[in-house]
Amino acid sequence: MNQRKYDNRNDTICAISTAFGMAAIAMIRLSGPDAITAIEKVFKPVQRNIRLTDQKGYSMFYGDISDNEGLIDTVVIGLFKAPNSYTGEDVVEISCHGSIYIQQRIMNMLTDCGIRVAEPGEFTLRAFLNRRLDLSQAEAVADLIASTSKASHQLALSQMRGGFSKKIEALRQQLLDFASLIELELDFSEEDVEFASRPQLNELLNELRTELQNLVDSFKLGNVLKHGIPVAIIGKTNVGKSTLLNAILNEERAIVSEIPGTTRDTIEDVISIKGIAFRFIDTAGLRDTYDEIEIIGIERTHEKIEQAAIILYIFDLNEFSISELKEDLEDLKNKLGNLDKRIILIGNKTDLLVEIPHDFKELVEYETIFISSKRKENINLIIDSLLLSVEQGITDTDILVSNARHLQALQQALKAIQSVEEGFLIGLSTDLISLDIRIALHQLGEITGKITTDDILSNVFSKFCIGK
Amino acid sequence: MNQRKYDNRNDTICAISTAFGMAAIAMIRLSGPDAITAIEKVFKPVQRNIRLTDQKGYSMFYGDISDNEGLIDTVVIGLFKAPNSYTGEDVVEISCHGSIYIQQRIMNMLTDCGIRVAEPGEFTLRAFLNRRLDLSQAEAVADLIASTSKASHQLALSQMRGGFSKKIEALRQQLLDFASLIELELDFSEEDVEFASRPQLNELLNELRTELQNLVDSFKLGNVLKHGIPVAIIGKTNVGKSTLLNAILNEERAIVSEIPGTTRDTIEDVISIKGIAFRFIDTAGLRDTYDEIEIIGIERTHEKIEQAAIILYIFDLNEFSISELKEDLEDLKNKLGNLDKRIILIGNKTDLLVEIPHDFKELVEYETIFISSKRKENINLIIDSLLLSVEQGITDTDILVSNARHLQALQQALKAIQSVEEGFLIGLSTDLISLDIRIALHQLGEITGKITTDDILSNVFSKFCIGK
Repeated sequence: MNQRKYDNRNDTICAISTAFGMAAIAMIRLSGPDAITAIEKVFKPVQRNIRLTDQKGYSMFYGDISDNEGLIDTVVIGLFKAPNSYTGEDVVEISCHGSIYIQQRIMNMLTDCGIRVAEPGEFTLRAFLNRRLDLSQAEAVADLIASTSKASHQLALSQMRGGFSKKIEALRQQLLDFASLIELELDFSEEDVEFASRPQLNELLNELRTELQNLVDSFKLGNVLKHGIPVAIIGKTNVGKSTLLNAILNEERAIVSEIPGTTRDTIEDVISIKGIAFRFIDTAGLRDTYDEIEIIGIERTHEKIEQAAIILYIFDLNEFSISELKEDLEDLKNKLGNLDKRIILIGNKTDLLVEIPHDFKELVEYETIFISSKRKENINLIIDSLLLSVEQGITDTDILVSNARHLQALQQALKAIQSVEEGFLIGLSTDLISLDIRIALHQLGEITGKITTDDILSNVFSKFCIGK
Repeated sequence: MNQRKYDNRNDTICAISTAFGMAAIAMIRLSGPDAITAIEKVFKPVQRNIRLTDQKGYSMFYGDISDNEGLIDTVVIGLFKAPNSYTGEDVVEISCHGSIYIQQRIMNMLTDCGIRVAEPGEFTLRAFLNRRLDLSQAEAVADLIASTSKASHQLALSQMRGGFSKKIEALRQQLLDFASLIELELDFSEEDVEFASRPQLNELLNELRTELQNLVDSFKLGNVLKHGIPVAIIGKTNVGKSTLLNAILNEERAIVSEIPGTTRDTIEDVISIKGIAFRFIDTAGLRDTYDEIEIIGIERTHEKIEQAAIILYIFDLNEFSISELKEDLEDLKNKLGNLDKRIILIGNKTDLLVEIPHDFKELVEYETIFISSKRKENINLIIDSLLLSVEQGITDTDILVSNARHLQALQQALKAIQSVEEGFLIGLSTDLISLDIRIALHQLGEITGKITTDDILSNVFSKFCIGK
């Protein structure tokens, strides 16, 4: 990838912006200097005397769209004129009948007209290059589209609208003021003056460090809200794992989707409960894997448990031995080591139970919920328990970091600020301190895109879906 | 279903009109008297001083859409004012970010505002009820959306634009003129006058019958163009059926889709070749079924062969006995009886062949093509042969009937016209003849929707996809 990749973006691009498939309506979008003139050649509005190039933005036109072989469809054209459009360029939206054939034929016609098929995220990339959005806002657009729960939606929306950017920019501005004073000292270094008052500087650094640390810390919650709180369900076969999942589902009339698991070969159930996504990780066969010698198997299970924030250990109340259960739980705790996880014991099948075994009190140290997944009894207790820890976290925080790229930049900036503080303590020369300040400035600049490289842009926009 | 179902359509409806799934953009559509006022309550345009109700149709607005819980998304609103919209009512289009969560939340917000979720095809139903489209044009909208090949697209487009309706209306008008003369005679029946000249009437009836017959006959071609020309591939296992299909596919860089077969448990490959869809019907195991006694098995295979317009009988040139082949083909012909099917013999695996067996000339009566599906040799000959019969049919015809409902109505009208002719011949009384004319008028009226019943409307519009 060379530097020029994101320099010369003067051509016109097109893409199908609606989801793939047959539907009432599909929308094809064009952006670039030729968008309107290209459409003018193939589109005949019902009002014959109209020229699209003469029309105002934010207006629509009904008419026929054709290629060399004849009429393709009757469509509605939406017109947006630079700079008042999503990309900041001239944009045309074609709303056609949602036949796959028609969508393809219009796309073919457009490419025959010399319009290039857009890369994923290229519309938003242009919005960024034309300063309609900063980089963190652009990233939030992709998150917004991918959002599947109230929490992830809220997070993306607030980031898209610039809440996060403003915070970062404010930090960066403080640091910049600080830097300019330090650099001024460098210019007059032979005279050994101090333009920046050291106590004030210390206070500022302290403030910056605290803010950065808070943002870094918020990633844990931001990330689980975005991707769903990982909940591992552990248990032997036939203890009622899938019945439990279905019961939780029913209880909440929740949105269910399937996302490819991080471990590639698993499918994870994401369930939105009261607006918060929980990612249930299936760990069927855990017990078997304990018994197996194969390292890979054990590693896989361990990995899954490591991913989880909450572990539901489910067992059949009618078929268990307290000693085996205790042993399993000890095993589990050893595996977890000092990882901070909540373990909830779920005693299932109360419907078949005569009485709770008297030796059960030996497990009193564990949070335990007795349920009947079959009769859907006490499922709400599990749900309440799942929501508890999360909800506290959300109300406490205003801005959450949810993007791994941002986390990395914030961590680097934090490290640089700490170096600056140390530098002052040990009396490091101003030019070396100034170097660390520049690193912090650079890292913060990368978040909002004040400073970009092709690698960053390519990394950010390749994650987008086509047509955005 | 009572008569009132399609009478009182004064409420406002909404639906997601784009395909289901995550995408750059999704569109939610509203239609009805409250469409604009409802949106006005939840949408805040960027230009604060704007009132949507005061704005012109075919204009768009950028702004925020919210529900009770807060901001949902920043969207573009498209405004269409009655009667200048698809439905003829006030229509609002909301283009939002294509997150499934956002789509659902906007839909929930709209239903909370008292807007009803539209039934399949209800937007087009309203277009019909408001005389924006006649019934045959409305049906073509569904066909257009479902079109997957150039031919089916062309067929639906021409029907949507009223070509077929005009033809039917012209026939109906001729018949109406004729009917009014006959009815006039009835009024003056005591005086025994003939207002309608009998030779002219005969000529008109003759003309009507011919036109109706042509339209009825065109269904066969119209239907295969719409649904794909059914091609059965027969052959033993390992003669290269799937390799042949793949070879045809490659040859044409064709669009492939899978549609559920009419026999429920088969998947049929639809391949578009030069704009014409061919529906390849897999009849694997045909030979086995011949040998089996089970009636059901034989019936199933027979059914598939009956569906086919063209039969490709494929065999391995290196492993066949001429006598067995002849026997199989005789068998096949007996099964077909007097059904009109083209049978093409495909001798496969020329790549392994030393020389064509000398006794092959015994099969000279069959159209035979020698191919190597592995080396993709002579595949084009099969394609040319498949296209041959269809293309002739297409260029000969201007208007094709492709809708089973239309076929039925045309057949009834044709039958009624034939009865009228017979009535005149045997000197039937004018009032009885007039009855048959009314039947014919009624049937033609049902095609374009001049005459409708709830059953017809419900049948037509239930086939639509949601949001159209």
